[in-house]
Amino acid sequence: MHKLMIVSRQQAVYEALLAEQPIAGLTLTQQPKEATILLADPPKIAPLLDEFPALEWIQSTFAGIDALTQPSLRRDYTLSNIRGCFGQLISEYVLGLAIAYQRHFATYQTQQQARHWHPKPYNTLAGKTMVILGTGSIGSHLARSAKALGFRLVGVNRSGTANEPAFDTILPLAELNSALEQADLVVSTLPATANTNDILNATSLSHCRKALLFNVGRGNALCETGLLSALDRGAIAHAFLDVFKQEPLPQSHPFWQHPAITITPHIAAESFPHQVMAIFRDNAQRWLNHQPLRYTVDFQRGY
Amino acid sequence: MHKLMIVSRQQAVYEALLAEQPIAGLTLTQQPKEATILLADPPKIAPLLDEFPALEWIQSTFAGIDALTQPSLRRDYTLSNIRGCFGQLISEYVLGLAIAYQRHFATYQTQQQARHWHPKPYNTLAGKTMVILGTGSIGSHLARSAKALGFRLVGVNRSGTANEPAFDTILPLAELNSALEQADLVVSTLPATANTNDILNATSLSHCRKALLFNVGRGNALCETGLLSALDRGAIAHAFLDVFKQEPLPQSHPFWQHPAITITPHIAAESFPHQVMAIFRDNAQRWLNHQPLRYTVDFQRGY
Repeated sequence: MHKLMIVSRQQAVYEALLAEQPIAGLTLTQQPKEATILLADPPKIAPLLDEFPALEWIQSTFAGIDALTQPSLRRDYTLSNIRGCFGQLISEYVLGLAIAYQRHFATYQTQQQARHWHPKPYNTLAGKTMVILGTGSIGSHLARSAKALGFRLVGVNRSGTANEPAFDTILPLAELNSALEQADLVVSTLPATANTNDILNATSLSHCRKALLFNVGRGNALCETGLLSALDRGAIAHAFLDVFKQEPLPQSHPFWQHPAITITPHIAAESFPHQVMAIFRDNAQRWLNHQPLRYTVDFQRGY
Repeated sequence: MHKLMIVSRQQAVYEALLAEQPIAGLTLTQQPKEATILLADPPKIAPLLDEFPALEWIQSTFAGIDALTQPSLRRDYTLSNIRGCFGQLISEYVLGLAIAYQRHFATYQTQQQARHWHPKPYNTLAGKTMVILGTGSIGSHLARSAKALGFRLVGVNRSGTANEPAFDTILPLAELNSALEQADLVVSTLPATANTNDILNATSLSHCRKALLFNVGRGNALCETGLLSALDRGAIAHAFLDVFKQEPLPQSHPFWQHPAITITPHIAAESFPHQVMAIFRDNAQRWLNHQPLRYTVDFQRGY
């Protein structure tokens, strides 16, 4: 019999979902010493890893598992994450903010408060080029949604190839600068790995021309001082940031009051517990049947 | 030789576009008496119609030609309007505002000003039902864009049939109430005709259940007091209005300060002069060759 422990901000929700429909062959425990399986939020479990001597498998409740791939941490267990349910939410976030910016919604909100009727000239988003860094399930879903709204799509990844037909062009990361030169919008969906640290910095961002920048991947990908100088020089017209090197973003951080930065508190995509539980149930069945899990993470690659 | 007169808010822009690339067989005139062809904004030309004794054809610069289909006005000329370029802009408007509402963008803007990091629970738009009144080129384009974002689409039109496969269901206007019962979002793209006056009123809107309402068609379709009572009773959760019975919306109008109404100054879709000019050039060629025009309006139907 496997012993499952849940370690999550949404502990009670997951426990209720499991109580509603138990998984045969799995019992819940509150004893770290006997837990063989963990359903856990990576930032919550990372500092506690050494308390679980019997650990065999962690099912992450998040897509982002970088808290668990730090070199200092143990890697003697199977790690799987959540995929496939974030593309829709990321697409809503990026397209919604892009439209709100392009179509002056904030201006109209202010004008309404002053009972002021004043149409402002604008252009369509159709025909604009969106450069998406990362062509995994999130980047590909975004590409399909953006295609339907008339965007031209350029994908950037390690290999320079991808199977998603919504991309008009795929470039390897080595050609990031030439991708950025074409961008009306740049969207980073990159995971946090050693290779993505500060990949968007003063030098790479200087290739942009009044682009809109979205970071919906991980804070590590964006050099914060590099962004400030790209905004100063007009290479970036506006940045929409959902992830940061330090979260919550510290009170004293210069981003908060910057007129060309929009901050959201890491809400671009959220793990909805019923979706996480559906993936966990499927993986638990596989685990109990000694079948390969879905969405396993390679500690070396970091995703 | 046909004589063309331009009567538009964007007079200078159209004259410059025509000067750049003249149309053989057409000369520009400033004399109403000799003009046989008008390129004109309907609200600007409607009160002047009787000054054009030689008038044969008006190419409207707008999609909305209701200013010219009033029963009191002459109908002894051919009227054509602009179609095909508004669907994209309407899709941006509706999807952008729907996402901004659903994903709490205004809340995050306020929180940013206070340096406040506070994620707010939300749900996806995927799976929600959008009911679109009017299945012409605008309604159909919106259906395709919304489909790509995961919406279920219900179209409502006179006949109850349509060729656009993005619609999951088409209902006739006679079944409007049952369409509204299913709606998470209701979007009116209806033209102003005698049949659409106040079609969204206290009675029909009472069939909605906390729906979001968008009016991007014409102000005549929405009974204003009916909307206020539907908001009071919660049948409508929020209304996004771009068109009104009187435009600009009068200073004293109760909509301005209503917390559940978002007002935009008739900007959901705009005629971009280069697109209007492309349609006019094509139609002028047809006119000069005695071929049928594109996008002609039936005065009787009103569209």
